[in-house]
Amino acid sequence: MPLQVDIERIKADILELAKIGFHEQDRGIYRMAFTEEDMEGKRWLLNRIEEAGLEAASDGAANISGILRGREDSPRLYVGSHIDTVPCAGMLDGTLGVVVGLECLRILSESGTEQARTIELIAFSDEEGRFGGTFGSEAFTGLLTPEKVRSGADLDGVPLQDAMLAQGLDPMKALDARRLPDEIEAYLELHIEQGPVLDEQQLQVGIVESITGLQSWSLRFDGEANHAGTTPMSYRKDAFMGLADFAHELPRILDENGGENSRATIGNAEILPGAPNSVPGAVEFSLDFRDPDTSILEDLSLAFQKALAAISRRRGLRFEFHVQGEILPVKSDERITGILEQKMGELELRGLKMLSGAAHDAQLVGRIAPMAMIFVPSRGGLSHSPDEWTSWEDIEAGANLMLATLSELAK
Amino acid sequence: MPLQVDIERIKADILELAKIGFHEQDRGIYRMAFTEEDMEGKRWLLNRIEEAGLEAASDGAANISGILRGREDSPRLYVGSHIDTVPCAGMLDGTLGVVVGLECLRILSESGTEQARTIELIAFSDEEGRFGGTFGSEAFTGLLTPEKVRSGADLDGVPLQDAMLAQGLDPMKALDARRLPDEIEAYLELHIEQGPVLDEQQLQVGIVESITGLQSWSLRFDGEANHAGTTPMSYRKDAFMGLADFAHELPRILDENGGENSRATIGNAEILPGAPNSVPGAVEFSLDFRDPDTSILEDLSLAFQKALAAISRRRGLRFEFHVQGEILPVKSDERITGILEQKMGELELRGLKMLSGAAHDAQLVGRIAPMAMIFVPSRGGLSHSPDEWTSWEDIEAGANLMLATLSELAK
Repeated sequence: MPLQVDIERIKADILELAKIGFHEQDRGIYRMAFTEEDMEGKRWLLNRIEEAGLEAASDGAANISGILRGREDSPRLYVGSHIDTVPCAGMLDGTLGVVVGLECLRILSESGTEQARTIELIAFSDEEGRFGGTFGSEAFTGLLTPEKVRSGADLDGVPLQDAMLAQGLDPMKALDARRLPDEIEAYLELHIEQGPVLDEQQLQVGIVESITGLQSWSLRFDGEANHAGTTPMSYRKDAFMGLADFAHELPRILDENGGENSRATIGNAEILPGAPNSVPGAVEFSLDFRDPDTSILEDLSLAFQKALAAISRRRGLRFEFHVQGEILPVKSDERITGILEQKMGELELRGLKMLSGAAHDAQLVGRIAPMAMIFVPSRGGLSHSPDEWTSWEDIEAGANLMLATLSELAK
Repeated sequence: MPLQVDIERIKADILELAKIGFHEQDRGIYRMAFTEEDMEGKRWLLNRIEEAGLEAASDGAANISGILRGREDSPRLYVGSHIDTVPCAGMLDGTLGVVVGLECLRILSESGTEQARTIELIAFSDEEGRFGGTFGSEAFTGLLTPEKVRSGADLDGVPLQDAMLAQGLDPMKALDARRLPDEIEAYLELHIEQGPVLDEQQLQVGIVESITGLQSWSLRFDGEANHAGTTPMSYRKDAFMGLADFAHELPRILDENGGENSRATIGNAEILPGAPNSVPGAVEFSLDFRDPDTSILEDLSLAFQKALAAISRRRGLRFEFHVQGEILPVKSDERITGILEQKMGELELRGLKMLSGAAHDAQLVGRIAPMAMIFVPSRGGLSHSPDEWTSWEDIEAGANLMLATLSELAK
């Protein structure tokens, strides 16, 4: 009989942590990085770790750890996620992965059997990117720089350094949070899918084979602003019509150059001057495109540029684009996904191997150490919303898969 | 030898009035209705009228008049336009029509020959619609209502009534500005084209055959906001892609249902939530469409609705639209356009009969009395910009055409 998690304890932890930062008015949770509520969540987690008889710790990036010592202290097995939230969040997202990790360590600790490996639960700071990046896991992997610490600011212009100082944290100490690759045996993370695939197919778990890479562009078409009444259609250099043409080309470009996991999204657009009776003179917009294969991302990038150039020629526009952000795709470790598959079979869970279309802390850690992720279904594909939900049964299934895999790896 | 305007006097008036409300910083003119600068412009005009030996007057809507008495006082011939401006305007727009009208009356007055008809120069208040309509000409034609006076407000929320009271004007007196149809023999207006047609074809004048009608819609597509990475393309209900489809249909809809003077413009759009990494859940946008034929406007309206419905079905969206504004097309008086054509020939001017794609005071007056308009070229089609320009030669040509036609009608 394999070890089993206690779903009642997971439930209790989730519901208790959900009270921290909860707003009655919109029934959403506000635990953005380095706010009072985020720090209260971190203190709650440290207490729960101690109550479980684990060793509590925190590093210079305010990542919170719970350590279950094994016979060897290094390299360690890491399991975790994050407990910070977007504004008006639901109660799961990263929190679920932290709470499930804590329960796994509790069960292993209570089992009385000493593991070969030390296992460290970790809750990374600011995964949601209040200050523009994945602060905690960047610090952990050594990707954080003094410049990033100095320049980080939230959308209201609050500097990262001020936010940390206000909580009694020394910003530059974040650079000390770095773990070296040979100190990390592997990193495992359970997370809600944040997409519709598992829910639509009524599956319990997903084994993430790779995390998608993405490029985030800001673009602009420039044409000529003109009077909407006096300018005949054939005289126009309408920047918005250029954008409409480009949007129309997206499906063709994905079909021709992409794979089944390619995505492209125009998520924002602003027309200038933006008056109902003016032909648009310019339009600024965003393009987010993703694929787990770097060469496909490059092909897509070229195809988008060709389309932009052709549309500009045809309509008498000029275009420019800037790469605002780029995240490299990362593959999960095949040995660990093999164990996950085997355990999924032993536990008789319904699941599949899949892609993560969203970025996660695992994507950062995966650049320096073996990584794998478990997804559980998101009801209706929803996330970053108070309506975000996963049934307790599916959470229990995912948590048992994590426990079995951690046990195997720690043996 | 026919009477001729003195272009030097027109030039002097234009340049002098251009100083009122001029901002050094952006080199634009700010004479928005019922501001201090607008009122200073009105006082300047009253002085110029008196200096010309004409009878100065103003009505309850603060429309400014200069009267040259003929043998009969009613019905009168009206000539004019407006001297209020959009923010950061050029020096011509409506101002040119008022200054040219003033010069015509000066020349006729100086000629010593009494006309049969009384001619009244009129500069209408707030043609540019600071308070949401064409206030002065609506008051003049009796289309203004007490409700409109009470509810009028500018984009900053300043009530029309407050703006008028601040200038010592009694808002409800605007209703007394009404002239009855049988008091108006005809209304003539010279205006810059505000479009590229005359300039591109190197013509001096345009004789406006009709002023386009327009409908202004606000529309919305609702879909489902989702994560741009985790939501496969086939699961999306992307509201912005619905708008892109609709924009793409505009040329077809104009080709199938419109005429050569039809125009359709999406001038503004706002995506919700508008985050680069979110599939757009909703998009609000504007549609402005114009044609001089009411039945074509109706056909276009139906075709747009069919396209919106089809796109919504195909993409799993909902749509709604509201008619925000509607202006009826108006035809010029054929007798007067006939005289304009004859005089254009006699003066050996290069010109053509054309459409006005923009709304003008003449559109309002044309609903109750015979109306005609003369266009002069807009360099590069520009208007509502400090770069708006017409050569003095073309202005002189247009002014002489106005003078010859007024003389003929007043005889």
